[in-house]
This record gives sequence, structure tokens and C-alpha cells, in this order.
Amino acid sequence: MRGAMAPTALTLDPDRLLPADPGTREIARELFAQVEHLPIVSPHGHVPAEWLADDEPFADPTNLLLSPDHYVTRLLHASGVDLAAVGVGGSDVDARAAWRVFCERWPVFAGTASAGWLEHVFAEVFGIAEAPSAGTADALFDALSAALATDAFRPRALFDRFRIAALATTDDPLDALDGHRRLAEDPSFHGRVLPTFRPDRYLDPAAPAFTDDVARLADAQGRPVDDFRGYLESLAERRAHFIARGAVSADHGVPDAYTTALDEVDAASLYRRAVRGELSSAEARELRGHMLVEMARMSIDDGLVMTLHPGVLRGHNTATHETFGPDSGHDIPVAAEFTRNLRPLLERFGLVKDFHLVLFTIDETAYSREIAPLAGFYPSVFIGAPWWFLDAPDAIGRFRSAVTETAGFSRGSGFIDDTRAFLSIPARHDVARRCDAGFLARYVAEGRITRERAREIIVDITDRQPREVFKL
Amino acid sequence: MRGAMAPTALTLDPDRLLPADPGTREIARELFAQVEHLPIVSPHGHVPAEWLADDEPFADPTNLLLSPDHYVTRLLHASGVDLAAVGVGGSDVDARAAWRVFCERWPVFAGTASAGWLEHVFAEVFGIAEAPSAGTADALFDALSAALATDAFRPRALFDRFRIAALATTDDPLDALDGHRRLAEDPSFHGRVLPTFRPDRYLDPAAPAFTDDVARLADAQGRPVDDFRGYLESLAERRAHFIARGAVSADHGVPDAYTTALDEVDAASLYRRAVRGELSSAEARELRGHMLVEMARMSIDDGLVMTLHPGVLRGHNTATHETFGPDSGHDIPVAAEFTRNLRPLLERFGLVKDFHLVLFTIDETAYSREIAPLAGFYPSVFIGAPWWFLDAPDAIGRFRSAVTETAGFSRGSGFIDDTRAFLSIPARHDVARRCDAGFLARYVAEGRITRERAREIIVDITDRQPREVFKL
Amino acid sequence: MRGAMAPTALTLDPDRLLPADPGTREIARELFAQVEHLPIVSPHGHVPAEWLADDEPFADPTNLLLSPDHYVTRLLHASGVDLAAVGVGGSDVDARAAWRVFCERWPVFAGTASAGWLEHVFAEVFGIAEAPSAGTADALFDALSAALATDAFRPRALFDRFRIAALATTDDPLDALDGHRRLAEDPSFHGRVLPTFRPDRYLDPAAPAFTDDVARLADAQGRPVDDFRGYLESLAERRAHFIARGAVSADHGVPDAYTTALDEVDAASLYRRAVRGELSSAEARELRGHMLVEMARMSIDDGLVMTLHPGVLRGHNTATHETFGPDSGHDIPVAAEFTRNLRPLLERFGLVKDFHLVLFTIDETAYSREIAPLAGFYPSVFIGAPWWFLDAPDAIGRFRSAVTETAGFSRGSGFIDDTRAFLSIPARHDVARRCDAGFLARYVAEGRITRERAREIIVDITDRQPREVFKL
Repeated sequence: MRGAMAPTALTLDPDRLLPADPGTREIARELFAQVEHLPIVSPHGHVPAEWLADDEPFADPTNLLLSPDHYVTRLLHASGVDLAAVGVGGSDVDARAAWRVFCERWPVFAGTASAGWLEHVFAEVFGIAEAPSAGTADALFDALSAALATDAFRPRALFDRFRIAALATTDDPLDALDGHRRLAEDPSFHGRVLPTFRPDRYLDPAAPAFTDDVARLADAQGRPVDDFRGYLESLAERRAHFIARGAVSADHGVPDAYTTALDEVDAASLYRRAVRGELSSAEARELRGHMLVEMARMSIDDGLVMTLHPGVLRGHNTATHETFGPDSGHDIPVAAEFTRNLRPLLERFGLVKDFHLVLFTIDETAYSREIAPLAGFYPSVFIGAPWWFLDAPDAIGRFRSAVTETAGFSRGSGFIDDTRAFLSIPARHDVARRCDAGFLARYVAEGRITRERAREIIVDITDRQPREVFKL
Repeated sequence: MRGAMAPTALTLDPDRLLPADPGTREIARELFAQVEHLPIVSPHGHVPAEWLADDEPFADPTNLLLSPDHYVTRLLHASGVDLAAVGVGGSDVDARAAWRVFCERWPVFAGTASAGWLEHVFAEVFGIAEAPSAGTADALFDALSAALATDAFRPRALFDRFRIAALATTDDPLDALDGHRRLAEDPSFHGRVLPTFRPDRYLDPAAPAFTDDVARLADAQGRPVDDFRGYLESLAERRAHFIARGAVSADHGVPDAYTTALDEVDAASLYRRAVRGELSSAEARELRGHMLVEMARMSIDDGLVMTLHPGVLRGHNTATHETFGPDSGHDIPVAAEFTRNLRPLLERFGLVKDFHLVLFTIDETAYSREIAPLAGFYPSVFIGAPWWFLDAPDAIGRFRSAVTETAGFSRGSGFIDDTRAFLSIPARHDVARRCDAGFLARYVAEGRITRERAREIIVDITDRQPREVFKL
Repeated sequence: MRGAMAPTALTLDPDRLLPADPGTREIARELFAQVEHLPIVSPHGHVPAEWLADDEPFADPTNLLLSPDHYVTRLLHASGVDLAAVGVGGSDVDARAAWRVFCERWPVFAGTASAGWLEHVFAEVFGIAEAPSAGTADALFDALSAALATDAFRPRALFDRFRIAALATTDDPLDALDGHRRLAEDPSFHGRVLPTFRPDRYLDPAAPAFTDDVARLADAQGRPVDDFRGYLESLAERRAHFIARGAVSADHGVPDAYTTALDEVDAASLYRRAVRGELSSAEARELRGHMLVEMARMSIDDGLVMTLHPGVLRGHNTATHETFGPDSGHDIPVAAEFTRNLRPLLERFGLVKDFHLVLFTIDETAYSREIAPLAGFYPSVFIGAPWWFLDAPDAIGRFRSAVTETAGFSRGSGFIDDTRAFLSIPARHDVARRCDAGFLARYVAEGRITRERAREIIVDITDRQPREVFKL
């Protein structure tokens, strides 16, 4: 077991993630070179706009890179680390001590997507040359801290350095979007940062604070809560507010993709009972399914792209949830179904011009079976890039293999980094570009597409596709 | 984006679809050479027998290659083309204008199975040297039209040129099979063209015209409709009619693989109520499940191979369905289950000698989990070749990988092209042979089978297997 | 078809199962060399302890290698062989005649996991140089028989030769474990052989002999059957008996992973009615689900590792089951669900220190979707190695690809051979080590982990991991 504790050099292989076969790698290398330095289009993610609006230096490595990254803290937790020891959920922790815990456990990340992203962050963003370990923890903490204190590591400087052409945040419908306003009004900031309307908690009567949330919504918009039409109007008004602040999409994270189109009287009746907390779980699902259809209707009215992320059981462990809050690493996927669930929505709106519905899944089985076939027929449906646990090199390869033969390259969403880990944004897009280059190179090597066509495709899916699908 | 509009040379790589690794490719090349020129055995497909019986020249490229190919028109539709603009469902369209639409959109097919088939058709069947594009559309249309007007492109000439040893059509039970009769009686035609009994609409009380269809069946066979035994006898008689015309199999396209064995009194009672349109959807499923068991029983009596294609939600979009009819590109897969669903059928007939049941799926998850295990035990069960969306190089590779370690190579059905696209039949079998050669070559390169054994296997699965499984 | 009958040389490629790409293979070769000769840790399997306790010579090739191996007999059966003809289920059969049947059908195994294991057994364990065939059957039978009659092929000699560091058996809770006792008390035997507590039949009211089995259990422990607390105490006592004989784990083969935590009054009431055979199938599932939670509670009390193997429909064919008994080749997988099913159990015990729950699946879709995410959060959950139909080279590769990016290498169980085929144990571990070497080599070749780290990982997952996860 020598070496597990020994510091090892941290170097990024310039050919990393490209196929091992030399002939294919040579093609992949050329394709990757077409897009390696293209600007980053990030139409869905979780970086707070305030970071850019305030442009304050980041506090320390732990609070920036460790505590909020539930990909990282969850695997530490699995290896026996208390989530409190790495500052999850706002736990009070000594930043340096937490960082040591992480560095000591660095070997558990070998082979994971997170390891690849973090190595990129350390080596490329910070210029660090040693891998994390018990022996390097303090030096690494110091080096990162020192860098973070410099102007070059302030949020806006990194935003520029990362060549981010557009960055979407994810926001509560009642958010005043002050960060976005300040950025828009700041003549010294030239980047594009846009909010995303994320209304889940206001649409699902089974959500823990639904009755409070809809009451706050009604109140904010000056309406009585107990009126379904008013509820819909309030939602539409909040969407308009988001659009005024630059939003191009509304994001829906739902337990499943169930949709249904109730008649208005029934929907209104369910809603009124939901406001009083009277719905059974089956009825709550009905209203939630209906509200997705209403959201699609609003998307057609106001043009917001609709993105759908179903199939996660959030808060799998109640004790962890109560102590550390949501997004603390125990959201676990379940099987997803799109064909039957989305039919009511697509019957109504699937053929409407300029309606864009992007389908994400963490259940890979849906790619070849449901999502590619749907996107290969409905002009409104786009194949969401691999998401969450699937946002990793092998999974990206499986994704491309699963969808391409049915739907080609033109029906994708473009890459989505979906991250709050601001410093890893270049790493994530780099991974996606390398994987796409490798996939295309194999198709070239197998005589399935010409090298010239592959060069066009990789630029197209990297740059044009996310702009067009997200109406940027 | 230069090049997207530029005409590019269309050339087929002689090594296309073979593995990129040079050592593995060399083995694959030799294995492919064993079968490249073997005759085509096509035991399941949709080419109309009348084409061969009439032997008239094909009308034009659009009506032959574009409008009826729902793989192609669906992706055009997804890219924003009106199905009417490419002549779907008998839409009245200018053939040349439709062809231009297709050629302009050719880039959306890059990487799809359809692109590979069409390139083969253009390059190999027609000898065309330029890829479709806006700039080449008219010249391509003219070149194809000119070729189609020649005797060499009449159906029978192509049938011979393609070296088709046997070609199965798919037919309604009440079809008089005149095309088949005329071919059989024509001393100048020496090919083997055989019908396939496809009784879905007569077996599923939930099918849209069930009551009319069973009435027509009863009428055709001179029986009252309201008699279950008579209904079974009518079906058996129609099967006998098909067998007399050369049929070797009965094909069943069902929403799911559900089977159940009701007692006769219950089945008869359900049937009588089904004839009156009185069944609930649950009851309709019961009767459909029972009728699959009856079909198995008849297969044991009359020897017809039973093929099962479950798991497609047909007509996902009602508006499209009403305007363009069935098979217009919006049939979408759903999850499939075989283990529990087929148990009642296999309990009764799974061990019966000479009963052949071929299981197809578009839900890939069933390959390793259910189909290979079933076919690895029941002598009656065969693993259907990848079908529909899965009939493509990467999917074929995943299929072989999923089933071989459990069931070897001996339990497969042989390749099934399942196509109405007559000119693409050689392309489809060529793809399957290349993919099998590549898969076997990898096993040879990995020391898992000997090169000598691989040479035997590829000939066996290409030529003997479909003949034996389909009792040809 | 020449060659199908011709004897061919049987030689094992020293690079078998390593990736074909020369650069990757060179890395894989070095990694494999790190572990090729490491001792075998086998924490779950089905070899009877009596074989080692008695240390009698094995009877003949058929009874040792053919009749009890349902991987082999099932594929023979599918190819048309009567299970009785190869001695399944104790069928009276001439060993040599049965062996001939197997050798004649040897080609059907090409490409299967079984072929690889058997080739290893023939070539490595016996030093045979010719493949099975009609022509070699008798000579092979004679050569194997002659070897088996020698002392070098007695169970203990093979145990030593195979370098088995620990071998777990699987045993009925009421088993006296005499074989284990005799081995422990035998000063001439130095190996570690340990029982495994397998209580399925006592926990599932839907099991065929449940009422008899719980009556026998109660009787053996001197309690009335009709007392839930007593039933739990009896189970705990039998576990203690196993632990006294060296057991480290309790194994649970269940139709699905359903768990539920009933209150004690309800559980006791269900149990009392179960004892009288009064439960509906839904109620039986409730009690079974509750008993899994009770088993977890006992595991926390007594430290036994809990292994879970859900998702098999056993005895798919009643006729075969009645004639040949269980494990006769017709156990067929079904879809598996872990996220929702295990939540009640994990809510209670998922965070308990030193609780180990190892999840196995034959539904591959659960690897990336559910098992890796669960094991990547809960410190108690480990990813079971590919099992049963998935215990094969391609499937192992898919498994590693599916779980590694989410959970790394540290959350696995280590390899489990799960076999009664004693002579194939080295073959199975050899396959796993080669596949892991190939997988790691690809990650090295793709610049994802360093070669030094890969060397550590392969030793870790081969040797330390199974010892630690199974508390050996």
C-alpha cells in the first residue's frame, strides 16, 4: 500500500479521455482541437449570481471546493466521514481541518468524475503540481488560499478567464433577482448571466411547504391564495419578471415525468383543496401532472424553454436531511418513464413551433428506449445532455452511443454543466468536448461519418446547439 | 459551417463498421469475408409481394426511398419538416420538391442507422459518387430516376442482384395473398417469397377496429361472429391458407408480452362481450393475453414459428395519426417485461418440441436480464435480432455483448431486416454481418474463441441460423 | 461446417480477456501480474464443507463438472438435451454417456462465461490439451477420471493448490454445520472454511414450505411456533450458532428488495397468521419485508454482514421444477428496484457504524441508477460484484463502467464466485482479475488514473476489499 500516502505528481495528460487506439486518438485530437478553446455556453447551472455581482474573493478552499460539492462530500461520507466534519449544510468547521480530511481520503475518488474535475481545477485553474494527500493537505490548502486572495481569482476575473459566453443560474420564482439586476446595471460587467425559473415547490402539493409557498406566492402578487386562475396568473407574472431579467428557460425537477391535462374545473378544485392540505398523494400527483402541462402552456406563451429533470428520490435519508438539509448527497435516482408520462403534454404541445422541451434523465435506460425516439419525432423535444451521476466520461460515451443511431447529433441540448462548483465549469466542458471528440473519432475510424463532417458536428454541438436549443 | 452545404464525395469505406484497433480489424476483415457474399435470408420484413409479382419499375426516388421510410421522415419531421412535404401517408407532393427537402436536411442523419443504409443504397445499388445536399438534390434525383427506369432496377432484377434466398412479407390474415399466388404460379420467377401471418388487429379487443375486424373474419370464413370456437377455427383456417401460400411464421406486435391462459368458458365469455365492444381495458388485456396463448397452441399444431414484438406505444401523437395514418414515425418504445408476462405461455408450451418462439425487444434492458436467460433454458425460445431503433451498429454490438455470455451464439434468430425499404435490404444485412464480424473478432483478439471457431460461427449465424429458426 | 466435429487444440491465451489495443494491453498485463498469484478470498459460494471435511476423491467428471452446474446444463437443455440425460437433479445417468452428450454440444458454449471457466479447468487444473468434442469425449472423460482418482485432486489438495485463503459455504439455518465443526477440529487442516447463514425459507411466508420450516425452527430451539418474539429469538440463536462456527455473513435471496418496518404488534399478528398459512400474497410480502429489517437489526447486534440478492423468479417452469428440483436452470431474472425498496431499512440502519449491506443485482440497470448512488452515500452499503448471469467478462466491464464514475473503486464488495463448481474457483477469480486489470488499464491509457495508483487499486480490490467488506 505504499504510495497511498505518498504525494504523487499531479499532471494532466494532454490526451486524457481520448480513445486509446492510436489511430482513433489522432482523429480525436484533431476534433478536440476544433473546440478546445471555444467559449463556454452554460445554459443550466447553480452558481449564485451574487458571487459575480459582489465579486468578493472566495473565502477559502473548503467553503469553495469542498463543503458545497455533494458529489465529493457524499463519497467522503460513504467512506466513513461525518458530513459535519467537511462543513456540509453550513456545519461549523475549521476549514483547514476539513480540507485535511478530504486530502487524506483523496484515493477514494480515483476513477470518479469528481476526481477528474478536481484535478483539472487544481492543475489548470491553480497551477498546482501535487495531488492531494495527507502529506500535501496543508501545503495545498495554503497554496489555494493564497491564490484565492488574489484579484485573479475573484469571480469576475475567473468568469473572463474561463471564457464564459453565457451562464444561467437557477432561482426561486419569488427571488427578486437582485444579483442579476445589479449585474445588468453594472457598466463594468460585460458577461451574460441569466436566471432560470425553477418553480417545483410551488407546483407539487406533496412538497413539504407547498401551502406556505403558494401563500407567499399569492401574497407577493397581491392575490388571494385560494384562486386557481390567480395562482396561474401569479406564476405567469413571476415568469415575466424572470424574462425581464434575462431568463430563457424554466426548469422542472419532478419525482417523475407524469403529466395530465385536467379540465379547468377539476384542476381548480384540486388546487383549492391542495391549498388546504387536503389532497391524497394520488391527487397531489394529478395536480402536479396538470401543472406541468400548464407550465408547457406558459412556455408556449412566453417562450421560456422547458427543461425536465425527473426521476430522483430526494432526501433518501431523513436523519441526514434534518441535520444537513437538502442537496446533502442522499438524493438517489429511480427508474424513469417518459413515453406514457409525457404523452398528455406532447399531445397538446409537442408539435407547437418554437416550443422547446429538454428531457434529462439519470436512468440511462430511457436514452435509447424513450428519449431518442421522442426527440427523433417531436420537433419540440430535445435530448438533455447526461446529467448528475451520468455527467462522466464513460456515461457520456454510453449516452452518445444510445441516442445517436436513432436521433443523430442534431437533437441534443448541448452540454449542461448543472453545477454550483464555479471553478470546475471549464473542467466539465473540457470533459464533454473530449468525450464528444472521442465518440466522433470512433465513428470516423469506423467509416460512419467523414472527418470533414465530424469537424462540423463537434463545433455545432459545442457551440451552436446550446445557444439554439436554449434560445440564447 | 462551410461544408454543410458543400457537396462531398460519397464513398463507402471497405472497412466500415469494423473495429478501429488494427489487430482486431484484420481478424474482422477475414471473418466478414466469409459471409460478405452469402445469399440473403430475410425471414421477416414488409416488402409487398405485389412489387415482385407485378415487376413494374419503381415510380421515383421519393416514393421509393423517402416517403415510406418512417426512420427517415421522422427525423426530418423532428428537424422541422412537415410530414406532408415529404409525402408521408399518401400526401400529395411533388416528388422532386420532396427530394430536395430531404437532401437539404441530409446533415441531420449523420451518425444514424438510416444514413448508413442510404449511403449504401446510393453508392452500391446506384453507383452514385456524391452525397445528398442542397446542391446535389436535383442531379441525384435525376440519376436515381434514370436508373429506376431501367430494367436493371425492376424489382425482380434487384431481387436477383441482391442474392435474396428467401423474402418474407407481412400480411393481414384476410389477405388473399394474390401476389404470392401469382409469384408461385409464374414459371419465370424462381425466388422464394413467403407471406407472414400478422393477426394483431383480430386479437386485441382494444384495437381500434376490433369489432369490425372480427366481423369481417367471421364473414370471410362463413361463420357467425359471436362464437369463440368459430373465431378460433377461422383463425386456424386463415393460418392454413397462409401456410398453403408458403408462410413459415406468424408475427405478433403487441403493446406488452402479457399472456394468460383462461379457461375456455371465461375466454369465450370475454370474447362475446368483446365482439359487442363491452370490455374494460383490463378485460381486453386479459383476452389479448389469452389469445397469444391460443396462437402458441396453433403454432404447435400447424408449425408456424411465433415471433413476438412487444413494447411499442403506437400512434403516440393523435393529430399526426389522424392526418398521416399509422407507421408515420411516432411509435415510441416503452419498457418491456418478458419473464413474468410469458410465464403462462411457457409453462404450457415452452418445452414442446419444434415450437419456436422468437422474442424481439426495443427495450435493451431485457436482453441480458430476461431474453438471454429465457433462451438459454427453453429450447423453444430464440433471441430475436436487434429490432427497429436497435437495428444499428452500436446497438447490435450492445446486443451481442448483452446476450452472448449467457446464451452463446446458438440461441439467436439470425438477422431480420424488418423493412419495407427494399433497396436497403443488402445494406442492412451488410451492416449486421460487419457488426457480427467485429464482435467475433474482438472475442478472438481477447482469446475467448479461436479464429477457426469464429469462422464457423459467423457462417452459422448468417446462413444456417435464420433458416433453421424460421424453418425455411 | 468442418471443424465443428474436429478436435481442436485447447490452449489458454496468456493475454486472454485483456484489451486488444496493444498499448492498453501492455498496461493491463502489468496490472494483472500484480494480482495473478494472490490468494483467493471467496466470501460467498456454494461448495459443501463436507467435501473438504471428508476429503474423498471426486466421483467422476460428470458428477463433478456437469450435472450440478446449472449454467452448463441449462444451455444444453436449450439446445435440445433432456436434463435427465446429463444427470440434473439426481437423475440416474451413465456418467460417460452424459459426458459424451456434453462434449458433442461443446460448440454451443462458444463465447459464454461457462466456456471460459471450463477451458481454464481443463487446461490449467487438469493439463488437458484438447477441446471437448464428439471425437475427444471418451479420452477426455478417461483423462479427467484418472486425474480425479489421484491424491492431487482430492478436495484439500486442490484447496491448497488453488491458494484459497478463505472459503464461505451457504447453509440452512438449521444445519448442524458438522462439516465445519470437523474441519475446525481437524489439526491436519489449516484452511479457513466458514458457513453462511441463509434463512430465506424461514422468512418468506410465500415460500412453499414456510409453515413446516418455521415449525422445525421452533422445535429445534425448543419453543412454540406461534410466538413472534420466540421466532426472532430462535433466528438469533441460529445466527449465534453460525457465528460460533465462523460465519461472517448472512445471505438473503429474495424475490425483490422490498423492506418495511412494521410495528411489533402488527408484525407479530402477521406472523401468527402466516404460521397458520392464512396470509394473502400482499401480506406475505409485508412480513417478508419486515423480516429483512429484522435481519438487518440482528446484523447490527451480532455483526454478520448482510448480503442481498434480489430479482430472480425461481422455478419459472413448473414441470422442470417438479421433475428436477430447484436450481435446475430455469431461474429467470426480473427487473430490480433498490432505491424505494430499501429505504425503510436504510432509514433505520443505513448510517449505523460497522453495519455492512452488500447489494447484488442481475438487473444491470440498477448499477448506475441505484446501487452506485446508494453505496456512494451510505457507509453501510457496498456494491456487490457482478452476479450470476453477469459474472462474465463483458458484463464485468459494463459493471465497472456503470459504477466507477459515481462510486470509485472503494465501495465494491470484491469479487464473489458464488459457485458450487469447486474446480472453477480459480478460473472465476482469474477472469475477474483480468477484467479489472483491463478496465484499470483503459483508465490509465485514457489518463484518468496514474499507473502507480492503478497498481494499488488492483491489489486493493482483489485482496483487501473482500476481507474488509466481509469482516474476514
